[in-house]
Amino acid sequence: MRKLIKKRSIKSGLLPGALVYVGDKSAVAVQVTIIDYTESVFEERQIQSLDECILFRESPSVTWINVDATHQVEIVQKLGDCFGIHPLIQEDILNTEQRPKLEDFGDYLYVVLKMLSINGNGDGMVAEQVSLILGPNFVISFQEEGKEGDLFEVVRERLRSSKGKLRKMGADYLLYALLDAIVDGYFVILERLGERIEVLEEELLANPSQLTLQNIHTLKREMIFLRKSVWPLREVISGLQRGESPLISETTGPYLRDVYDHTIQVIDAVESFRDMLAGMLDIYLSSISNRLNEVMKVLTIIATIFIPLTFIVGVYGMNFKLMPELEWRWGYPAVWLLMVGLAGMMLMFFRRKRWL
Amino acid sequence: MRKLIKKRSIKSGLLPGALVYVGDKSAVAVQVTIIDYTESVFEERQIQSLDECILFRESPSVTWINVDATHQVEIVQKLGDCFGIHPLIQEDILNTEQRPKLEDFGDYLYVVLKMLSINGNGDGMVAEQVSLILGPNFVISFQEEGKEGDLFEVVRERLRSSKGKLRKMGADYLLYALLDAIVDGYFVILERLGERIEVLEEELLANPSQLTLQNIHTLKREMIFLRKSVWPLREVISGLQRGESPLISETTGPYLRDVYDHTIQVIDAVESFRDMLAGMLDIYLSSISNRLNEVMKVLTIIATIFIPLTFIVGVYGMNFKLMPELEWRWGYPAVWLLMVGLAGMMLMFFRRKRWL
Amino acid sequence: MRKLIKKRSIKSGLLPGALVYVGDKSAVAVQVTIIDYTESVFEERQIQSLDECILFRESPSVTWINVDATHQVEIVQKLGDCFGIHPLIQEDILNTEQRPKLEDFGDYLYVVLKMLSINGNGDGMVAEQVSLILGPNFVISFQEEGKEGDLFEVVRERLRSSKGKLRKMGADYLLYALLDAIVDGYFVILERLGERIEVLEEELLANPSQLTLQNIHTLKREMIFLRKSVWPLREVISGLQRGESPLISETTGPYLRDVYDHTIQVIDAVESFRDMLAGMLDIYLSSISNRLNEVMKVLTIIATIFIPLTFIVGVYGMNFKLMPELEWRWGYPAVWLLMVGLAGMMLMFFRRKRWL
Amino acid sequence: MRKLIKKRSIKSGLLPGALVYVGDKSAVAVQVTIIDYTESVFEERQIQSLDECILFRESPSVTWINVDATHQVEIVQKLGDCFGIHPLIQEDILNTEQRPKLEDFGDYLYVVLKMLSINGNGDGMVAEQVSLILGPNFVISFQEEGKEGDLFEVVRERLRSSKGKLRKMGADYLLYALLDAIVDGYFVILERLGERIEVLEEELLANPSQLTLQNIHTLKREMIFLRKSVWPLREVISGLQRGESPLISETTGPYLRDVYDHTIQVIDAVESFRDMLAGMLDIYLSSISNRLNEVMKVLTIIATIFIPLTFIVGVYGMNFKLMPELEWRWGYPAVWLLMVGLAGMMLMFFRRKRWL
Amino acid sequence: MRKLIKKRSIKSGLLPGALVYVGDKSAVAVQVTIIDYTESVFEERQIQSLDECILFRESPSVTWINVDATHQVEIVQKLGDCFGIHPLIQEDILNTEQRPKLEDFGDYLYVVLKMLSINGNGDGMVAEQVSLILGPNFVISFQEEGKEGDLFEVVRERLRSSKGKLRKMGADYLLYALLDAIVDGYFVILERLGERIEVLEEELLANPSQLTLQNIHTLKREMIFLRKSVWPLREVISGLQRGESPLISETTGPYLRDVYDHTIQVIDAVESFRDMLAGMLDIYLSSISNRLNEVMKVLTIIATIFIPLTFIVGVYGMNFKLMPELEWRWGYPAVWLLMVGLAGMMLMFFRRKRWL
Repeated sequence: MRKLIKKRSIKSGLLPGALVYVGDKSAVAVQVTIIDYTESVFEERQIQSLDECILFRESPSVTWINVDATHQVEIVQKLGDCFGIHPLIQEDILNTEQRPKLEDFGDYLYVVLKMLSINGNGDGMVAEQVSLILGPNFVISFQEEGKEGDLFEVVRERLRSSKGKLRKMGADYLLYALLDAIVDGYFVILERLGERIEVLEEELLANPSQLTLQNIHTLKREMIFLRKSVWPLREVISGLQRGESPLISETTGPYLRDVYDHTIQVIDAVESFRDMLAGMLDIYLSSISNRLNEVMKVLTIIATIFIPLTFIVGVYGMNFKLMPELEWRWGYPAVWLLMVGLAGMMLMFFRRKRWL
Repeated sequence: MRKLIKKRSIKSGLLPGALVYVGDKSAVAVQVTIIDYTESVFEERQIQSLDECILFRESPSVTWINVDATHQVEIVQKLGDCFGIHPLIQEDILNTEQRPKLEDFGDYLYVVLKMLSINGNGDGMVAEQVSLILGPNFVISFQEEGKEGDLFEVVRERLRSSKGKLRKMGADYLLYALLDAIVDGYFVILERLGERIEVLEEELLANPSQLTLQNIHTLKREMIFLRKSVWPLREVISGLQRGESPLISETTGPYLRDVYDHTIQVIDAVESFRDMLAGMLDIYLSSISNRLNEVMKVLTIIATIFIPLTFIVGVYGMNFKLMPELEWRWGYPAVWLLMVGLAGMMLMFFRRKRWL
Repeated sequence: MRKLIKKRSIKSGLLPGALVYVGDKSAVAVQVTIIDYTESVFEERQIQSLDECILFRESPSVTWINVDATHQVEIVQKLGDCFGIHPLIQEDILNTEQRPKLEDFGDYLYVVLKMLSINGNGDGMVAEQVSLILGPNFVISFQEEGKEGDLFEVVRERLRSSKGKLRKMGADYLLYALLDAIVDGYFVILERLGERIEVLEEELLANPSQLTLQNIHTLKREMIFLRKSVWPLREVISGLQRGESPLISETTGPYLRDVYDHTIQVIDAVESFRDMLAGMLDIYLSSISNRLNEVMKVLTIIATIFIPLTFIVGVYGMNFKLMPELEWRWGYPAVWLLMVGLAGMMLMFFRRKRWL
Repeated sequence: MRKLIKKRSIKSGLLPGALVYVGDKSAVAVQVTIIDYTESVFEERQIQSLDECILFRESPSVTWINVDATHQVEIVQKLGDCFGIHPLIQEDILNTEQRPKLEDFGDYLYVVLKMLSINGNGDGMVAEQVSLILGPNFVISFQEEGKEGDLFEVVRERLRSSKGKLRKMGADYLLYALLDAIVDGYFVILERLGERIEVLEEELLANPSQLTLQNIHTLKREMIFLRKSVWPLREVISGLQRGESPLISETTGPYLRDVYDHTIQVIDAVESFRDMLAGMLDIYLSSISNRLNEVMKVLTIIATIFIPLTFIVGVYGMNFKLMPELEWRWGYPAVWLLMVGLAGMMLMFFRRKRWL
Repeated sequence: MRKLIKKRSIKSGLLPGALVYVGDKSAVAVQVTIIDYTESVFEERQIQSLDECILFRESPSVTWINVDATHQVEIVQKLGDCFGIHPLIQEDILNTEQRPKLEDFGDYLYVVLKMLSINGNGDGMVAEQVSLILGPNFVISFQEEGKEGDLFEVVRERLRSSKGKLRKMGADYLLYALLDAIVDGYFVILERLGERIEVLEEELLANPSQLTLQNIHTLKREMIFLRKSVWPLREVISGLQRGESPLISETTGPYLRDVYDHTIQVIDAVESFRDMLAGMLDIYLSSISNRLNEVMKVLTIIATIFIPLTFIVGVYGMNFKLMPELEWRWGYPAVWLLMVGLAGMMLMFFRRKRWL
């Protein structure tokens, strides 16, 4: 959250459309990979010079240009200018704190969304911005930090092996395939969150502590983040699916509707998790109250039994000259009797109150 | 909830439209039953080979093909291909974690929803996905786990006995009859939940414990689940009833409106239950506070009465050489008088404070 | 709430449109009253045979057929068939757990809503379903349990005495008059609820107990019920008033708008009551906390004053051989002085802390 | 709130349009004032007989008829009949518990809303219903209780002195001027509420008591009332401004939009106040908890320090024959040393726990 | 909040359109700066007499008139009359408590919004109203308190240095540049708020006090204020971007959409902060409960261990003649043994309860 805001302030005051990378520059070297294919031909390579890209612009085959680690301003600019991308979109690609959105510029569509993955330790999630540009026969994808085993690898693999109908369809179907891969990634995240909720729930019932509460709140905050990434996505994909752009063929419609359904499923799951976390908070708070109650009961029982008895023994510890009871032969046993009787009565009282 | 997510991750990375069964495979053997009828003719049989189904596709009579236990991928695929069902729909049938939805493919409608029933022990509910496909003169239904005495049995019985106008109407009326049977099943579930809420309520007033709280939360979670199943159903049936598809005749309209009304009633009931559970949570929390209050009052009363008295007897237990009171003839009775008076005053004070 | 659900399950599995009475059969005998009027003529009688009703169907005068205690299936069916009412509507009339709704069948309108009245003891409310059918020149009303002094009596009286313009207007104005009578009844209910809230509020400030909380929740639940009856009514009357049906003349429009305004007023009042009850819950909970605080303060003051004093007297109750203080002439008075001083200091401390 | 409901029940069962005054009859005598003006001519007088009003109906000059204290049924009726006002509107004028609304009858508009003012003591607010009827060249205003120095006085003054363009414009501008005066009155109310919230806030931080809580709730309830008066007003004025009625000229449009903006400002302020009150409730509840905590800490510290010491002195108060310590020369000082050491250790423990 | 209301009441009762400054008059002297530019020419100067402004009205170059410290009524009036601004807009400019809004008067647009900046101490924010008027070739901006280094300085700098395409575009692009500068300012505010939340969070975990709570509420209130400033802005900019006004050229559309996206980002961040603050409140309240629990446990453990022991020593302090134990040789050690054993048992009990 705060990350977003801190970064933004670097930019405030600059020219609109000024290209400044707003992201983590410590990332790996930029890689530009081009995959060009028709049903029968397939070519994949990393390019050295961006000038090559012009060759692909006009070719009738489908071209997928993937740019990893989008912190090199000049690459985005060169590619953008080559394919006629509006300067503001170039700025959006570099500003890695975009809200998911869809923009239709007539001859190309711009989609930006979050790709979520589990971090190295497996206990948190990493969000990475992905920008997708769909033209008549090309898709350009910009990833914040490209990794070897990223979510797009399955798409690449499918293209290479010519499995499914990906190779037979146009660029819009490739866009769908990429969106689908990203949304599928959300399910992996949800699964992990679900596991953590489960663990937390057991902890909550067994031995709740202040730490449990903090964990509940950490999860809640991740849910807020997830929700912020997924809610606008719904609109984005619904916008694509509505089929107003000529760039998206009718046959791709049902597939996008399928991704849309998955997005709704993710939203539903996030809402359910939120409800569950709220319920856990209630249980936590009431278990604290319950424990206090139990502590108080023990104190009360012991104190109320012994306080009167202590008074009685105090009475016979007084040093008055004339205390007839002290002289009695059975005085001492009688006092014990009295005290045992009193304690018994009080125990019965507590039992009736259901405190025991 | 979590079930949904775990299963999904099996699929992530597969081809879209790749047919993988996402459900419990431990279910019974697949059964395909065909019921073919007109007003005068009725035929019901289990089929051995799916090739037979082609015969029914073209016949003018109404055909209902029911597939139990949809985990055999090839059956769904074969049937789907035979009736021209889109691959993505075939995938949705197999993925038993769909959100209720309606899809209109022009020459057939696809409806997916949840069929709810009480589980064996009678203390939980079982959700089963049902997919319905409505064509011009056929209905295909896919049940996740077909059981002998399932909710569709009433429809079958009505068809066999030719009661009502089911046999006189088209396939759209059959679809209505199936939907109606499923929605009627929700009322049974609501009745059970209502009973459990009633039991919980009595427990809450008589003897609330930490377990009561957990039961409230279990119910709340079931309510979340129920709500997730029923809310989208509203849209689905409203979509059917709006009468935009030529597959649904005008005479069936009022019947679908009737199912729609029932769905709204279920939603209303679920919302009321949620409100009631929220109220119960309040009562639970305040009854815990009340009990703590009561415990504290008893402790306070006993302690505050005896603490000063114990002090007094302590005074006369001191061993000073010169303590004139100790020598007095009526010293001992006078101290008793003093103490009884003090205790009486304090009791009066507590009574005035309404603590007694 | 639960009532609704229990009853429904009797029906589940029956034919749609199967006429089964879903209500309390212990009600009084069915009465069918016919009132037939024009501006100059007025006839009112109880009919013996339903065959007579056909006579009225065609007559140009306005006919109001009122059926009390709608649990006799055959009466509803005969009347329904005679006036051409759709079987599903006949079913809805018998199923006394309908949600308020309006259905337009072109040549007649069907309105179902709740008539609320105070029960015998005056401490609860009774809901009764009323179905109204408006035809070109007739209104048929079905009451769940007709009573002598029901809310419709005012309308009957006005018809008899020819007061106002009721006799001069058509059947649509009669429908309006009946709706108005029912909505006026809601105000009586709200008045009672208001009184109960007032009583509860005083109790809350004077002497809140666990019972107060239960009363708050009982009221809250009645509010939920009331809300469920009134919310959909808003849509119903708004639908009537929108004037899409030719059965409703333009002159009746403003009158229906008037009923609509009253419905909104009822909804507003219910919402305000809900807010007030929520506020009362807060006050209740905080008054419990306050009382605990007060109890704790008394305990703390008495305990903290006497505990050190008791320690001091304990010291001089020790039996050491050599305790010089005990031998002193003014030892005893000196100890008293010490103790009084200590107590005084502690009282001052508590006063400064504002605990006294 | 309850006022509304009590009053209504007087009416239930009467003829619709039956004119019964539903309000406080203890008000002052009815006054009917007529102001008739054009840009050059101005006439203001109290009329004796309502028959005079007919004269003004046809005159081309703008006429403003103001009726104070609308509890005299015949005046409303006579005026209404004279200007052709629908009987239901006459009823609405008399029923002083209307929800703000706008009704368009083609040749006249009816607006009803609440005029709020500070009551005599300055610690509460008084709501008064104002009905406004706009005709082609007249405005009729009905006030529940007309007072000398009411909010309309500023408008009258402006008319008399011919300041601004009021005299140059038509009846619609007069309507605007009256609405503006009423909405300006809301700001005065908000200011007072703001002051009371400020006072309450200081009280809350300095010395919160049960009374503070009640004050918070009183304010909350007034906020609910205010909200109920202002929310529907938004729709009313938006309806006027939309310019669908020919009675409202285009030049008046921007002025109504201005009133609309003010209404939105009032709504915004009310919502902010509600948020602030909710926050104050949280602070109140947590300050109670905090105080309990402080009390408990003092009790715990004193009790835990002295309880062990009292035990020790008790030990040496025992009367065993053989207790060697009692015979020791330094026994008594040694016990004191032991006790002081123990107390010191406990104080250190509490300091480490940050309880001191 | 309250500021708004207090100020308004000064105005209540005045003529609509009466120009009264509703703001802080203690501000600096009014400054009117004119910047006039085309792509090749640039002129910037402070003007002495407002009569000069007429010269710029007709010129084809783009003119930006910036008025600082808008409390001088006559300046606003003169400028307004010169450029044909509606009197109500002139009033809105002077009333510095407007809600952000957009008004389209055909030949000019009026936009009012809040400019937020950090106050001198850096611990609060200052809101300043900015009114912008867009004509065919001019922009007039009114700032509540113009400061040297205000947010518009970046725009001025860009104009002077002819950087970017600002000088090449029309007045609508200048309007965009100003809006963008203001919205960029929100990010700086959000960053500060984010930092304060972070600090508060650490404080909350380390050592929560009543002050922490007050800080949470202060932040919450600032969030309410921020929200009130930003929410309506969304509508404003969306209204501009929709492109209905001919004053806004098509090429400026994407830039406004960009500002719109930033506004949505700000709203998202505010909502996230609100959620976080709500979570912090929960943690605060539960940490108070936890501390109370800890205090109670210590008290209970010490009291319950020593209370029985004190009773025992009391028993042997009694002065009965006949108490055989006192005569026993090993009586004293035996009592010690008994007491140590008892204490040990109780400690074990507490350990089993997990209180130690």
